[in-house]
Amino acid sequence: MKNDNEKLKNIFIKKLETIVKKNQSLLCVGLDSDIDKIPKKFTDQFEFNKVIIDATHDLVCSYKLNTAFYEAIGYKGIFSLKKTCDYLRKKYPEIPIIIDAKRADIGNTNLGYVRLIFEYLNADAVTVNPYLGEEALTPFLAQKDKGVIILCKTSNPGAGEFQDLVLSSKYQVVSIKGGIKLYQYVAYQVAKKWNKNKNCLLVVGATYPSELKEVRKIVGDDFWILVPGVGAQGGDLQETLKAGLNSKKQGLIINLSRAVIFSKNPREETKKWRREIEKVLSRK
Amino acid sequence: MKNDNEKLKNIFIKKLETIVKKNQSLLCVGLDSDIDKIPKKFTDQFEFNKVIIDATHDLVCSYKLNTAFYEAIGYKGIFSLKKTCDYLRKKYPEIPIIIDAKRADIGNTNLGYVRLIFEYLNADAVTVNPYLGEEALTPFLAQKDKGVIILCKTSNPGAGEFQDLVLSSKYQVVSIKGGIKLYQYVAYQVAKKWNKNKNCLLVVGATYPSELKEVRKIVGDDFWILVPGVGAQGGDLQETLKAGLNSKKQGLIINLSRAVIFSKNPREETKKWRREIEKVLSRK
Repeated sequence: MKNDNEKLKNIFIKKLETIVKKNQSLLCVGLDSDIDKIPKKFTDQFEFNKVIIDATHDLVCSYKLNTAFYEAIGYKGIFSLKKTCDYLRKKYPEIPIIIDAKRADIGNTNLGYVRLIFEYLNADAVTVNPYLGEEALTPFLAQKDKGVIILCKTSNPGAGEFQDLVLSSKYQVVSIKGGIKLYQYVAYQVAKKWNKNKNCLLVVGATYPSELKEVRKIVGDDFWILVPGVGAQGGDLQETLKAGLNSKKQGLIINLSRAVIFSKNPREETKKWRREIEKVLSRK
Repeated sequence: MKNDNEKLKNIFIKKLETIVKKNQSLLCVGLDSDIDKIPKKFTDQFEFNKVIIDATHDLVCSYKLNTAFYEAIGYKGIFSLKKTCDYLRKKYPEIPIIIDAKRADIGNTNLGYVRLIFEYLNADAVTVNPYLGEEALTPFLAQKDKGVIILCKTSNPGAGEFQDLVLSSKYQVVSIKGGIKLYQYVAYQVAKKWNKNKNCLLVVGATYPSELKEVRKIVGDDFWILVPGVGAQGGDLQETLKAGLNSKKQGLIINLSRAVIFSKNPREETKKWRREIEKVLSRK
């Protein structure tokens, strides 16, 4: 039975769970390699990323590349992004690559982004925005072997403007005091309806631990959540883990970007955060 | 008084209104130059775009470039996108360039996209996704001279999954039978709160004329709405104009992409659509 479940598992999730075990890590390093912040000795963003990757590859469960930092400088940035993905594929093929693109367009237009992310960059997962609905995102959701990570409750201070809107009581698909909020409804739709290929994950910011707890309740135990916002954005690691871990002490990808890549010693910084996570896991 | 109003106007809006008048056109041509669909004689997407632009420049009020069709092929696509924008800037500087990027990330990460769109591509306006809220989109909204076009009701068949959700009655900021829907609340927030720099527009699909009418009511007369979905997607031109035009018979940017650029004669096709619009305008 367990073997059957394993067979049915999405390839990205399998890859993720394998590396989590091997590297004993729930940490994702976000290669937010802002061209204005990387040391001048590096000729391009790829050269900087290479150093970070070589220093941290045995300590992480994934790398996340946010397209904004690469597209900022036009086609040269896209080229650095590609070189980074190619390098990861070749040198560390066991580590999943997440492209943090937060894309969403109508139907077939999304095929352009699918090609960018899964053909050109050959990545394992992508972040997408839910506003246009499941039907629009079909080209992403149809990627059976990939991960599709849908924004639910984002880490920014003003995330609640729409995400926290309480819906009319007719949408009360789960019992929640005070009425169901938009982000909770998104979590429900994704977990219960969009996830036909078992390739969906969600994004919930570490800056909102009680919302993370609500989302975990809605999506159930067997679901991965990408959590940005620990570190530079001020999300509390311990509260995040307490709120979001599943019964196997897994189910969370904890992303750290600036706090690691622009630290004096990225390897030591990554180790430090991994240790912090281990402490909580052994306690829980 | 009228001159004062003109002075206060956002540069993108001024540019748009000037070309609308000069070219007598509310038509925007969407350069959705899918690499698999453009005739093989063209060496890149830019060469194709150039032909379309030269054939239609005196008939349109803007060009819209959707990043998905360019990013599909990686850095070469971004290069074609840039060459197209550079060509427009140089040869037809009076025509506004809209980058249909539908981006949204948290706070400063958006600066990367701002650089891509307003520095690297030197465009006039961008489409963005509202899900993360005004605070996250500040780097876009702070561009006083540019246009920020926020997705409201998108043209895809499944747009309603979240956009049509009825909100709790406590958000009933405008009187709407059956309760206010998310897309209406987005329209309200954008028009009444986000628009401090008078640089906001909205996207409403031509496939939803009654929703367009609702949005026009909410945002008022002096507001531009970008309307995709006429043509290949099946939105009815006459109904769209009836539902969305303001009292000056303006306020709508009618986008046509595939129906024009992949037609046998793009110039004649654009003329035909412009004539169709004129017919309705002279009747109304």
